[in-house]
Amino acid sequence: MLTRFLPFLAWARHYTRADLTNDLIAAMVVTIMLIPQGMAYAMLAGLPPQAGLYGAIVPLVLYAAFGTSRALAVGPVAVVALMTAAAAGAVAQSGTEHYHLAALWLALLSGGMMLALGLFRLGFIASFLSHPVISGFITAAGLLIAASQLRHLLGADISGKTLPQVVPSLVANITQISWVTVTLACAILAFLIWARTGLAQLLQRIGLSAPAAKLLGKTALLIAVVASTTVVLVFGLEDRGVAILGDVPRGLPEFDVPAFDMGLIQLLLAPAAMIAIVGYVESISIAQTLAAKKRQSVDPNRELVALGLANLGAGVSNAMPVTGGLSRSIVNYDAGAATPAAGAMTAVLIAVALMVLTPLMYSLPRVTLAAIIIVAVLSLLDFRALPRTWAYSRADGAAMAATMGFTLLVGVEQGLMAGVGLSLVLYLYRTSRPHMAVVGQVPGTEHFRNVARHTVVTDDQVFSIRVDESLYFPNARALEDRIVQALSDRPALRHVVLQCTAVNYIDASALESLEAINDRLKTADVRFHLSEVKGPVMDQLARSHFLNDLTGHIYLTQFDAMMALAPSMTRACQQRDRCETLRTKSLGGS
Amino acid sequence: MLTRFLPFLAWARHYTRADLTNDLIAAMVVTIMLIPQGMAYAMLAGLPPQAGLYGAIVPLVLYAAFGTSRALAVGPVAVVALMTAAAAGAVAQSGTEHYHLAALWLALLSGGMMLALGLFRLGFIASFLSHPVISGFITAAGLLIAASQLRHLLGADISGKTLPQVVPSLVANITQISWVTVTLACAILAFLIWARTGLAQLLQRIGLSAPAAKLLGKTALLIAVVASTTVVLVFGLEDRGVAILGDVPRGLPEFDVPAFDMGLIQLLLAPAAMIAIVGYVESISIAQTLAAKKRQSVDPNRELVALGLANLGAGVSNAMPVTGGLSRSIVNYDAGAATPAAGAMTAVLIAVALMVLTPLMYSLPRVTLAAIIIVAVLSLLDFRALPRTWAYSRADGAAMAATMGFTLLVGVEQGLMAGVGLSLVLYLYRTSRPHMAVVGQVPGTEHFRNVARHTVVTDDQVFSIRVDESLYFPNARALEDRIVQALSDRPALRHVVLQCTAVNYIDASALESLEAINDRLKTADVRFHLSEVKGPVMDQLARSHFLNDLTGHIYLTQFDAMMALAPSMTRACQQRDRCETLRTKSLGGS
Repeated sequence: MLTRFLPFLAWARHYTRADLTNDLIAAMVVTIMLIPQGMAYAMLAGLPPQAGLYGAIVPLVLYAAFGTSRALAVGPVAVVALMTAAAAGAVAQSGTEHYHLAALWLALLSGGMMLALGLFRLGFIASFLSHPVISGFITAAGLLIAASQLRHLLGADISGKTLPQVVPSLVANITQISWVTVTLACAILAFLIWARTGLAQLLQRIGLSAPAAKLLGKTALLIAVVASTTVVLVFGLEDRGVAILGDVPRGLPEFDVPAFDMGLIQLLLAPAAMIAIVGYVESISIAQTLAAKKRQSVDPNRELVALGLANLGAGVSNAMPVTGGLSRSIVNYDAGAATPAAGAMTAVLIAVALMVLTPLMYSLPRVTLAAIIIVAVLSLLDFRALPRTWAYSRADGAAMAATMGFTLLVGVEQGLMAGVGLSLVLYLYRTSRPHMAVVGQVPGTEHFRNVARHTVVTDDQVFSIRVDESLYFPNARALEDRIVQALSDRPALRHVVLQCTAVNYIDASALESLEAINDRLKTADVRFHLSEVKGPVMDQLARSHFLNDLTGHIYLTQFDAMMALAPSMTRACQQRDRCETLRTKSLGGS
Repeated sequence: MLTRFLPFLAWARHYTRADLTNDLIAAMVVTIMLIPQGMAYAMLAGLPPQAGLYGAIVPLVLYAAFGTSRALAVGPVAVVALMTAAAAGAVAQSGTEHYHLAALWLALLSGGMMLALGLFRLGFIASFLSHPVISGFITAAGLLIAASQLRHLLGADISGKTLPQVVPSLVANITQISWVTVTLACAILAFLIWARTGLAQLLQRIGLSAPAAKLLGKTALLIAVVASTTVVLVFGLEDRGVAILGDVPRGLPEFDVPAFDMGLIQLLLAPAAMIAIVGYVESISIAQTLAAKKRQSVDPNRELVALGLANLGAGVSNAMPVTGGLSRSIVNYDAGAATPAAGAMTAVLIAVALMVLTPLMYSLPRVTLAAIIIVAVLSLLDFRALPRTWAYSRADGAAMAATMGFTLLVGVEQGLMAGVGLSLVLYLYRTSRPHMAVVGQVPGTEHFRNVARHTVVTDDQVFSIRVDESLYFPNARALEDRIVQALSDRPALRHVVLQCTAVNYIDASALESLEAINDRLKTADVRFHLSEVKGPVMDQLARSHFLNDLTGHIYLTQFDAMMALAPSMTRACQQRDRCETLRTKSLGGS
């Protein structure tokens, strides 16, 4: 019981010396990536660099205690940092106290929402975000993130949150470009892109074992940081227009509940909800992918609880919103992390770095962090997803295109809203038009098939229709429209039979539609019947007045209905010998 | 072709003398109701009384030309008037120029939206409003309408748009009550409520024929208006605190495109969309009910076009938003309206009334109009709907309760939003958890059934699962979670078979989930197979890379899959004679 709420009790009991070694190695590799990435993502979010490092302490410890994934590396990530910048930037000027306050409240609010969703087992809410929407959003966010780093890469004062803002700003400030910064940027980018595969290969060629080379290959970020800082110091580049990081406060984060500001909180509720959902969706898919490799599993609702607590922890320790990050989680997994303890060890190592290494970061050029961000988001971009999705399904392609377009041109929140809204509308459009078939009897059998596809027998007085879908509010009206249409098309009509073979559920809207159909048919002196109603649906209908008001009957089979209602068929049937046999068999089999 | 766009061409060709008589009688009866109701609903909307009468001229002519319903009586209606008051009241002070401008823009915007939805055949959008939401909304709106008329019924200065505003205002101003007004209100209400059935009975008892008595029974509103005006004049009640209507401008409405105000328009977009949807839903259900009685049909998208044009007409003729009204439509139908020409005739009669009768309306007491509103909304209230819906379905009941609660306590727009939002969330909740059954073989047959319900044969190395729903974004993750769970539960697992009997559609989200499942199983060295995939679904999958990447096979039947994959079953089968026969039969029948 206790391990349900504190999953670490489950693995801590069997923790071995081998686990300790594995976790420690993984923690060291992740820390080497996390120090520059944490500062870079803080910069992306418009926050001071330490906010990113603080985001790698308390949240990691909380996730280690409550999380169910053994490989997920929690902390600042690019997309959530961009969403934080967009939301905080809408209510405050970057660099101000109020701006950081907004970021902390975003962490608290999104954490609180994740926690609540997890506790009430409402993780299904994330299904509002369809794959095409999330995929289009991530690619568009990656482009916006890259655009936001242009100012650091070029050393020019380029601003803006969307492409229509960034492009004119780029054009207007093109003359400000610092060529020293650009040269440095190109060198670092070239090294990092090469290092993604080249560094490990090189290390292996100079004699290291394959696993060791792979691990040391992850130090590329560290090499870039050390080398670029050295270059800045040696050549005095700070005086030649290369922006440097400056003071990073030494020591651990202070705990502090952010100042309460109701007006601010109200403005941040919607963006916090989006950060919560996007952060959760990203994190859970990484966690599930990694868990499956080892035939482990993660519990979605407990993941929500753990991520919620991690964000609440971030909010009270002057950090920034966090979630599970793709690149570091893969590194963590590859480095052999055996348990969530690796995350807690990472937190300790980051804390040590904050206490001893911060003076060394003073001359770290901002362009290095920007290059680290660019290389990280390269893996987010998937331009082939749009044509691929469009080819597979027009509706999904349209939702993806709307998400990308709105995100790039209007803003991240509007992009998500447009995508989710369009998905829902297109989904309702599809379900609002269920497949309906007018059915007739296959001659000489008890089978009933679509009159449009098969040669079947029908009767002028009876209209039989089959709906291949449950009846609920998106499609309730469609059946009503179809039957009303049939009523006006067929002057001889006496009976309408609804064949319910495929109806698993009838909601209150559909029930009212059925009642309306019954009433309308009644005023036109036509009786309404159902056939082949499933047991649970009958139970449900029995809880309403519908069965009392129904002008017709409920038939066990469509064949029974036609035998009872269609004089022409009954006659035809009586003339045949096999009919009675068939009928008996039908009753026996149903 | 032309009659598609101008439906009146269809009926005008066969227009007979009898039709003319019927339409004229119906038009006269409707006009007698419409003059007081139009002014009353204008008062409810916070507009001058002539706005309601203008709303019964141009819109009616346009609907007569473009509408497809033969009995629908278009014009000002109570719920739309309330929504107009709420939306205009949020941007301007009632009684000001700006307020009327807002009301006109609401008519133009909602009209434009209806027109666009109709032209693009997007009427299905209305299915966002489930029956419980619309029913809860109408009842709550009826209560708010009644509450808004308290000021006129009591002659006291009671204000507020929601119950938490009205109740304190009532308590604070209880001492202001004008007892003469209250007495008049009680008398008129008692008469109108009695007249609903009593007047026609009385007329019949004093010798009129049944149809004539029924028609003359509809003059109750006229009697109330004439009698109360006479009482006010004779007893000089205006000086004793009874509020009167005052000047109603004589003559026809002026045509005028309202002043363009971008800021105002942006604020009104959302409420206009709600007015468009609610107005359409109300109107179409009345039109369909009446059409069905005569075995006629109405075209939902053409109705949207006609209602859209009617509202655009209202917007440029100083009127107010309009739609099809229940009570007048029923009267129109009962009075024998044969064609939409009855509507056009009503418009002419209203125009005549505006030219000659307005001086007589000066002393009409406002309490009479309030009483007319109250009696009209009594038919909207359905308090038993909530317990009935709750008993039938918890989800629908919750959506209805949320709609009613938010409408009464927060506001009409918030009420609709809460209802629609909760419906969608609960709907996603249901579809996010499709029925999934782990299946096994019924011994000695080729049938596969739920292991939880039947005694079936399974194999440790094979996990067979059937999903009883199409695979799409709300439930894509559920299948992923279920299979990942199975993977961690079953160490001996070698094969996963997804039985697709009930899968009619696989959207891009579900496709990515299937790809993710395939990849995850692959890393754990488990192969993924499908069985019984329907033809259209196979065609769709063929447009993606999934079939190439699939680690397993697509089997025609679940039985084929198990024979190929499960060693234990294959052995068991080989020992039996009938097995080969069964197998042959299966291939022949599929």
